[in-house]
Amino acid sequence: MSDSKPVIAVLGGSGDLGSGLALRWARAGYPVIIGSRTEEKAKAAADAISGRFPDASVKGLENVAAAEAGTIVVMTVPFSNHAATLGSVRAAVQGKVFVDVTVPLVPPKVSRVQMPPEGSAGKAAQEILGPEVQVVSAFQNVAADHLADLDHDPDCDVLVAGNVVAAREQVVELVEACGMTGWHVGPIDNAAVAESLTSVLIFMNKRYKSPGAGIRITNIPDAD
Amino acid sequence: MSDSKPVIAVLGGSGDLGSGLALRWARAGYPVIIGSRTEEKAKAAADAISGRFPDASVKGLENVAAAEAGTIVVMTVPFSNHAATLGSVRAAVQGKVFVDVTVPLVPPKVSRVQMPPEGSAGKAAQEILGPEVQVVSAFQNVAADHLADLDHDPDCDVLVAGNVVAAREQVVELVEACGMTGWHVGPIDNAAVAESLTSVLIFMNKRYKSPGAGIRITNIPDAD
Repeated sequence: MSDSKPVIAVLGGSGDLGSGLALRWARAGYPVIIGSRTEEKAKAAADAISGRFPDASVKGLENVAAAEAGTIVVMTVPFSNHAATLGSVRAAVQGKVFVDVTVPLVPPKVSRVQMPPEGSAGKAAQEILGPEVQVVSAFQNVAADHLADLDHDPDCDVLVAGNVVAAREQVVELVEACGMTGWHVGPIDNAAVAESLTSVLIFMNKRYKSPGAGIRITNIPDAD
Repeated sequence: MSDSKPVIAVLGGSGDLGSGLALRWARAGYPVIIGSRTEEKAKAAADAISGRFPDASVKGLENVAAAEAGTIVVMTVPFSNHAATLGSVRAAVQGKVFVDVTVPLVPPKVSRVQMPPEGSAGKAAQEILGPEVQVVSAFQNVAADHLADLDHDPDCDVLVAGNVVAAREQVVELVEACGMTGWHVGPIDNAAVAESLTSVLIFMNKRYKSPGAGIRITNIPDAD
């Protein structure tokens, strides 16, 4: 466990997607803090990871305390909690890289693209958190159970959007630590692509009976 | 050249993308009508295809006449001409399958997602043309020069969105006739995915020096 790796706080880290990401980052040697709405749930999720990787640095805290303690803060909460959670951690994340994993699904029609007025959840996060936070959008398209299955890497690339190139680069490294390929896809406005794509993948999972459709980027020199 | 194949009118068919699609459909035996703003340009584009496939049924007409003559009408015009062209062919396409290939790029920042107020160009097309037109959105992500290169099929899947399943199915067949794989991705609202993805692919072409980045869908049973 290298001391040089940044501490990753995963808000909503007791959920399926957050715990899958935390599990892979813990495996890769990142210090991880699970955030949840209660410290109790956070600690339970942290204990589950520690049980699998006893040498990993993993602990659980309430979301705001986790955001304060993280060097990089990742948020995986349902869209219905998006604005409220952002408001609660706004002060704690100033000056940090903030990774928004939120997909703006609006039940019951989750397979229909319904983007928020800001254009995307990622752009809304940037507006709520302010210009001093380096918001990066990523990980919307990977199935949670594929992350949890450590015997296989997900057959899905990750689109990484954000206004600060160095922040995107850090997130591309976090994608690679999860066993996937991350791609720079431009400014936070471009978060709309991966966010809307999730509704399409949900549609395709049903239409084609897929256990978790994904995407791969093609025609990149030195990458194919 | 089977008489059972529908006549495809390609509005804006003298442009790079439209002529590439028309070329591949002509090769596959579809009767093709090139539409353009002037009959002269349309005929020149049609002659170029006839020169390569002398047995193909290809002719050129002004856009509205082409729309009237087509069984399936495909539109590939710049976004700045989108609403005006739709208005001009509205009467001609009632009751037909209408394939909108438009990407809502807003120069000069074409690598930044900037979706129209309706949510997507495809949805705007459905609203302008009315409920009797079966609008299907497709082909936004394929590079025009890859279509023109008949020695290779484009390494890119095509996302096919539209409210009428049978219309989507017809367009999936047109995708296959071009040598690509087409996927049902849900209602016309979901056109936003492929439309916004084009800005991301333009960004990636520059960032990664790609001759034309594309996507593939993964994890579909019986398709991988």
